Amino acid sequence: MAATAVSQYYLSFHSIPEDGGTWRRRRRRTGSSVCCTPPVPSIPSSSPPPVVGPELSLSFGAHVIPHPKKVEKGGEDAFFISSYNGGVVAVADGVSGWAEQNVNPALFSRELMSKASSLVEDEEVSYNPRTLIQKAHAATSSVGSATVIIAMLEKNGTLKIASVGDCGLRVIRKGQVVFSTSPEEHYFDCPYQLSSEAVGQTYLDATVSSVELVKGDTLVIGSDGLFDNVFDHEIVSAVGTTSDGVTNTGIS
Amino acid sequence: MAATAVSQYYLSFHSIPEDGGTWRRRRRRTGSSVCCTPPVPSIPSSSPPPVVGPELSLSFGAHVIPHPKKVEKGGEDAFFISSYNGGVVAVADGVSGWAEQNVNPALFSRELMSKASSLVEDEEVSYNPRTLIQKAHAATSSVGSATVIIAMLEKNGTLKIASVGDCGLRVIRKGQVVFSTSPEEHYFDCPYQLSSEAVGQTYLDATVSSVELVKGDTLVIGSDGLFDNVFDHEIVSAVGTTSDGVTNTGIS
Repeated sequence: MAATAVSQYYLSFHSIPEDGGTWRRRRRRTGSSVCCTPPVPSIPSSSPPPVVGPELSLSFGAHVIPHPKKVEKGGEDAFFISSYNGGVVAVADGVSGWAEQNVNPALFSRELMSKASSLVEDEEVSYNPRTLIQKAHAATSSVGSATVIIAMLEKNGTLKIASVGDCGLRVIRKGQVVFSTSPEEHYFDCPYQLSSEAVGQTYLDATVSSVELVKGDTLVIGSDGLFDNVFDHEIVSAVGTTSDGVTNTGIS
Repeated sequence: MAATAVSQYYLSFHSIPEDGGTWRRRRRRTGSSVCCTPPVPSIPSSSPPPVVGPELSLSFGAHVIPHPKKVEKGGEDAFFISSYNGGVVAVADGVSGWAEQNVNPALFSRELMSKASSLVEDEEVSYNPRTLIQKAHAATSSVGSATVIIAMLEKNGTLKIASVGDCGLRVIRKGQVVFSTSPEEHYFDCPYQLSSEAVGQTYLDATVSSVELVKGDTLVIGSDGLFDNVFDHEIVSAVGTTSDGVTNTGIS
């Protein structure tokens, strides 16, 4: 059975220089209900996304843009992609604080992704992203720590996600973010993290969620370097969509 | 088998008078990786949330606070809760624009919730929130339209969610939002909506997601009247938690 492409996938690690920040006001309204006058312009109910459709799979694109000060060493982020089943994608972000202890922060994140990649088809993992985090973490021997997110697509359209820390994922459908993960932090700028040390978190601390994808959805997954520096509406704008939902613009 | 309370549940419909808004800056950093020095203070790995634990169920609390101009008619929001299985909760928000056509916007949302409530245990619904939206919508006869969100907890901890429009849900764990739904809108302030008219959306337009809950999680679910007027960190602060995750403060 032929797999239908769900999305153009952008794996992005953005490090954007401080620009003074942009002040943003969240809309505040006095009303508790919606205000548009019915009948509203709408997506015709005759052309909804298919609930039971063809098998789905991901198509991928990736960008790694290290922090300018980390370019020489290739940055501290790592990722892997796999076409197994509907597609698997994962991102890990090495905790930079380890550099103060003369440990290359990239080693742990890279080993974590390498181990996870080799375990994707493992029977005991059973295509469960939390279990994949567990087994990949257990297989590491490097000193360090990292945040991690793993997303695994079932061909029926269910995207299963497990995340420890502040890597993130967005699902963009028809020009808007319809699903978003939330970061886990101990306090500002100190995320939950898998570690070589006993004080770190484990797969048991992962937030586990899922979302039903439809053909044409675009996933954006990355480290906090992307989501701390680029607003969702900017990501949506950069991704862009054609009328059939096919991505026509990448994040660069 | 005794069900263990997952959470104190707050069903909130807030209509907060315009206060001029609060300007907020999203944190912007130059780094793409986390900055805290390891080992970080952490939640000991010896006391993680249980992955396979006792059966879970929801305990509920609810507040309905209509817009001041809508108090006389009781507001346009509606909800229902059910203890079936792990617990079911739903919110619908009647589209206020119908008032311009001399239609009480509350009628549709109330009937939608009434029908959904009566269908919770329906075999064909099969404890699927999207199917519940489908069948409840089909059962309505009122003129009007509404946004809707339905959340159904499996006793194994899986909270299944379907949403059409801009009602929302947050999962709060240990003082932070770890899961959040995203609104569906045609354009600013005009959400996707189920309608008595053919131009509206259907269950096929629902965003369907799920999240694994653990004991002590707090859910906050409500209409856009809550989430447009109260920031997530304000919700977290209002909810509060004790060290064991049990809610000790409600949203009022």
